[in-house]
Amino acid sequence: MLLSDVASHLKLEFLGKDIEIESMNELSLSSSSQLAFAIHKKYSYELKSSKAKAFLITNALIEHLPEDSSYIICEDVSISMAEATKLFYKKPIEQRLSHAVVGQECYIDAMAKVEKGVVIGSNVTVMAGAYIGTNVVIGDNTIIYPNVTIYRDSVVGSDCIIHAGSVIGADGFGFSHTKEGKHIKIYQNGNVIIENDVEIGANCAIDRAVFNSTIIRRGTKLDNFIHIAHNCDIGEYSLFVAQTGVGGSTTLGRNCVVSGQSAFSDHLDIAPFSTFTARSGVTKSISNSGGVYSGFPLMNHRDWKKLQARIAKLND
Amino acid sequence: MLLSDVASHLKLEFLGKDIEIESMNELSLSSSSQLAFAIHKKYSYELKSSKAKAFLITNALIEHLPEDSSYIICEDVSISMAEATKLFYKKPIEQRLSHAVVGQECYIDAMAKVEKGVVIGSNVTVMAGAYIGTNVVIGDNTIIYPNVTIYRDSVVGSDCIIHAGSVIGADGFGFSHTKEGKHIKIYQNGNVIIENDVEIGANCAIDRAVFNSTIIRRGTKLDNFIHIAHNCDIGEYSLFVAQTGVGGSTTLGRNCVVSGQSAFSDHLDIAPFSTFTARSGVTKSISNSGGVYSGFPLMNHRDWKKLQARIAKLND
Amino acid sequence: MLLSDVASHLKLEFLGKDIEIESMNELSLSSSSQLAFAIHKKYSYELKSSKAKAFLITNALIEHLPEDSSYIICEDVSISMAEATKLFYKKPIEQRLSHAVVGQECYIDAMAKVEKGVVIGSNVTVMAGAYIGTNVVIGDNTIIYPNVTIYRDSVVGSDCIIHAGSVIGADGFGFSHTKEGKHIKIYQNGNVIIENDVEIGANCAIDRAVFNSTIIRRGTKLDNFIHIAHNCDIGEYSLFVAQTGVGGSTTLGRNCVVSGQSAFSDHLDIAPFSTFTARSGVTKSISNSGGVYSGFPLMNHRDWKKLQARIAKLND
Repeated sequence: MLLSDVASHLKLEFLGKDIEIESMNELSLSSSSQLAFAIHKKYSYELKSSKAKAFLITNALIEHLPEDSSYIICEDVSISMAEATKLFYKKPIEQRLSHAVVGQECYIDAMAKVEKGVVIGSNVTVMAGAYIGTNVVIGDNTIIYPNVTIYRDSVVGSDCIIHAGSVIGADGFGFSHTKEGKHIKIYQNGNVIIENDVEIGANCAIDRAVFNSTIIRRGTKLDNFIHIAHNCDIGEYSLFVAQTGVGGSTTLGRNCVVSGQSAFSDHLDIAPFSTFTARSGVTKSISNSGGVYSGFPLMNHRDWKKLQARIAKLND
Repeated sequence: MLLSDVASHLKLEFLGKDIEIESMNELSLSSSSQLAFAIHKKYSYELKSSKAKAFLITNALIEHLPEDSSYIICEDVSISMAEATKLFYKKPIEQRLSHAVVGQECYIDAMAKVEKGVVIGSNVTVMAGAYIGTNVVIGDNTIIYPNVTIYRDSVVGSDCIIHAGSVIGADGFGFSHTKEGKHIKIYQNGNVIIENDVEIGANCAIDRAVFNSTIIRRGTKLDNFIHIAHNCDIGEYSLFVAQTGVGGSTTLGRNCVVSGQSAFSDHLDIAPFSTFTARSGVTKSISNSGGVYSGFPLMNHRDWKKLQARIAKLND
Repeated sequence: MLLSDVASHLKLEFLGKDIEIESMNELSLSSSSQLAFAIHKKYSYELKSSKAKAFLITNALIEHLPEDSSYIICEDVSISMAEATKLFYKKPIEQRLSHAVVGQECYIDAMAKVEKGVVIGSNVTVMAGAYIGTNVVIGDNTIIYPNVTIYRDSVVGSDCIIHAGSVIGADGFGFSHTKEGKHIKIYQNGNVIIENDVEIGANCAIDRAVFNSTIIRRGTKLDNFIHIAHNCDIGEYSLFVAQTGVGGSTTLGRNCVVSGQSAFSDHLDIAPFSTFTARSGVTKSISNSGGVYSGFPLMNHRDWKKLQARIAKLND
C-alpha cells in the first residue's frame, strides 16, 4: 500500500515522497518499509534514529524527523494510528491459499477445522472442535485438545500440549479513545509464538501482538484460566498457576513462578527467577533476579508476612 | 398456561379467576399476562401498584394485593417461584421452527452450527465451531470467532466482534434454597442483548437474565475472561480489563473503566464515568459520576494511595 | 507392565521380584498391583503399612519397606515418579473400542463428537461442538451445552447441566522440577467424577486427578470461570460464585458457600457449612463447621469487618 493510500483513508495529507508501506510498527522496531508513529514528545530521540521512512506524526515533532522522511501530520496521532491499523488488518480467514500441509502419523479429527495455509509437523494430534487458523504452524508431537482455537498466523512449537478451550492469538485489547469517549479499535496485526515443550491449561487466552509477536518461551507451563495480553514475552521454564493475568507488553525472565490469581500491569520488565506468591499484584518492574514477592502493593515476601502480623495486631 | 396449571405443578391451590399466564416477572416489571411473586414484606407497596393479575404470595401479604387478583398462597414463595420458572423454561433447541435467515455476503463456516429461527444480517462472519442458538439475531458486519457459543434468544448488534470461546446467554446463577440445604434452580428465561459496536474478548461469559434482559450497551469493549452475571446493564462505551466480574442485576453507567481483576457485588447502581483501578472490589452503589476508586473495601483512589503508604509504615 | 519395564524406562535397576504393575498411586492409597513412591522421610510410617508391593524409593528409606517388597532406588524420586507416570498415560483417544452406547430419547447433535466407548443414559442432550471423550459415562437427563469438552474416563451423573465452554477432565497442573529448572510432566492418569444434580457454569475447568479421582459431589452448583484443580473433593450442595479457584487435593465438606474471586490453597481440608465472603484467600484447613470467613490472610468475618474499620482509621 502506498503512503498516499494511507493518507487518503485518514483524510489527511502526506508530505514527502509517496512510498510503499508493508505494515506498521512502533518507532524503535520499524524497518524502512513500515509506517511508524510518534505520539509523545518523549519519542523525539527515537524518532531521530528510526529506520522507518514514513511516519504518522504531530506538527510539534516534525523537526525531529530523520532527513528524507515522508509523513502524515495528524491532529491526534493515537486516533490516526488506530484508523491506519485497519488498512493492514488481515481477514480472519484467507480463502485463496492452497491446502494445508500435514506431516506423517498425525491424527487430525474430521470435526477439527484446519484452514488453508497451515503447516503441521509429524505425530501431531488435533482433536474434534479444534480450530487451526490460516498460516498457523505447529511443530512435531504437539497435542491440541478439543475446542482449542488457534487464530491465524500463530506459531506453536514441538512437544506442546494445549488443553481444551484455550484461545491462542485473539486480538489484544487495544483502543484509541476519542474526546467523545468512543473507543477506536487498534487492529492487532501481530501474532503469537509458542516455543517448544510448552503446556497450556484449559480455557487460557494468549492474545496476539498489535505489531510483532507475543511470545511464550520454551518449557513454560500454564495452569487453567491464564491471561497473557498482547506483546508479552514470557521467559523459559516459567510456571503460572491458575487465574493469573499478565498485562500488555510485560516481559518476564526465565524460571519465574507466578502463584494463583496474581497479576502484572502492562509494560513491566521482570527479572528471571522471580517468585510471586498467591494473589501478588505487580505494578513495577523488578531488576534483581531471584526475589520472592507478595501482596498488592507488592513487597518482599518477608516484609509482607511481617506486615500481615502487624496489621492483625490492629484488632487487639 | 393457565394459573390452575401452575398451581397444579406446585401442588398448591389458587384463588380468584383462572387466567392465562404467558411468563413470569418481578413485581415491578410484570405485565397483566405475567405471573409475579412477592417474597418479603418490603414489597407490599410494589404489590399494590403491580400490573400483574396473578401472584405467588405468602399469606401475610394477601391484604396488599390489587383488587381482582388471582393468587397462589405459598409457604415458601422463593421455592415456589423457582419451581414455577421451570414451567416457562424454553428447551435449549426448538426443532420445529423453519430455517434460519442469513443475509448477503455472509461467511458461515460449514462447521458452525446455526439453529433454526436464527436471523443473521449481511456481511456477517461465523467461523468454525461457533454455535448460534434458536432465535438468535445478529446484525450486519459482526464477526463471531471459532468456538463461540450464543445461546437461544440472544440478540447481537451490528459491527460487533466476539472472540473465540466466549459464551453469550448461559444460565445466570440463580437458586432458591430449601431448609435442608438443597438448591432449587430458578430457570433463567430471559436473554442477552448486545448492542452495536461491542467487542468481547476471548473466553468471556455473559449470562442470560432470569426475566427480561442482560444488556451490554453500544461501543463497550470487554477484554478476556470477563464475567457479566444475569440482569446486568453495562453502559455505553465502557471498558473492562481482563478477569473482572460483575454480580447479578448490577447497572453501570456509560464510559466506566474497570481495570483488571476488579469485581462488583450484585444489585449495585454505578454512576457513569466511574473509573476503577486494578482489583477494585465494589460492594456499594456509587451515585456521583466521574470518580476514581481503588481497593477492597473500595475507597477513593487518593485515599487508597495514602492508606497504602500508612499501612506500609506499620512495618517500620 | 512389569516392574522391570519401569526400571528400564527410568534407566535404573530394580531389586526384588519382577511383578506386574497396573498403575501408580500414592503410598497410602496403593493396592498390591500399583507402583507406589516415597519421596520424603515423613512417609516412613506410611511406607511400613502400604499395601503396595513395588516402590520408587530413595536409598535412605529402604529400611522402612515392607517385607518382600520390590523396588527401584532413585536418586530423585520426584523426577523418577514423573517419568514413570508417562508409562501409564492413556492416549487422548482410544480408537480400538467398539461404538458408544446411547440411551433412549437422547438428542446428540450431529456436530457433537462422541468417542467410542462412551455410555450415555436416557433423555440426555449433547449439543453441537460438545466433545465426549473415550469411556465417558453420562447419566440420565443431563444437558451438555455447546463446546463443552469432557475428557476421556470422566463420569457425569444424572440431572446435571454443564454450560458452554466448560472443560471437564483436563490434566491437573503437576510437574517435577529438575535441578536445572526444567519441569517434567507428571501424567495425570486419574479422572473426574461429577455426581448427580450438579450444575456447572460457562467456561469452568475441573481437572482430572493425577491418580484416583477429582470429585464434585451431588447437588453442588458452580457459577462461571470456576477452577477446580486435580484431586479436589467438593462436598454436596456447595455453591461456588464466579471466578473462584480451588488448589490441588483440597477437600470441602458439604454445603460450603464460596463467594466470588475466592481461592483455596492446595491440600486443605475445609469443614462443612463453611461460608467464605468475596475474595477470601484460604491457606489453612478449617476444622470447625459453620464458620463465616473473609480476607486474605483469612479470618473470621466479624474480625475482618472490625479490622477493615481499624485500617480505615489509619487514614485519619
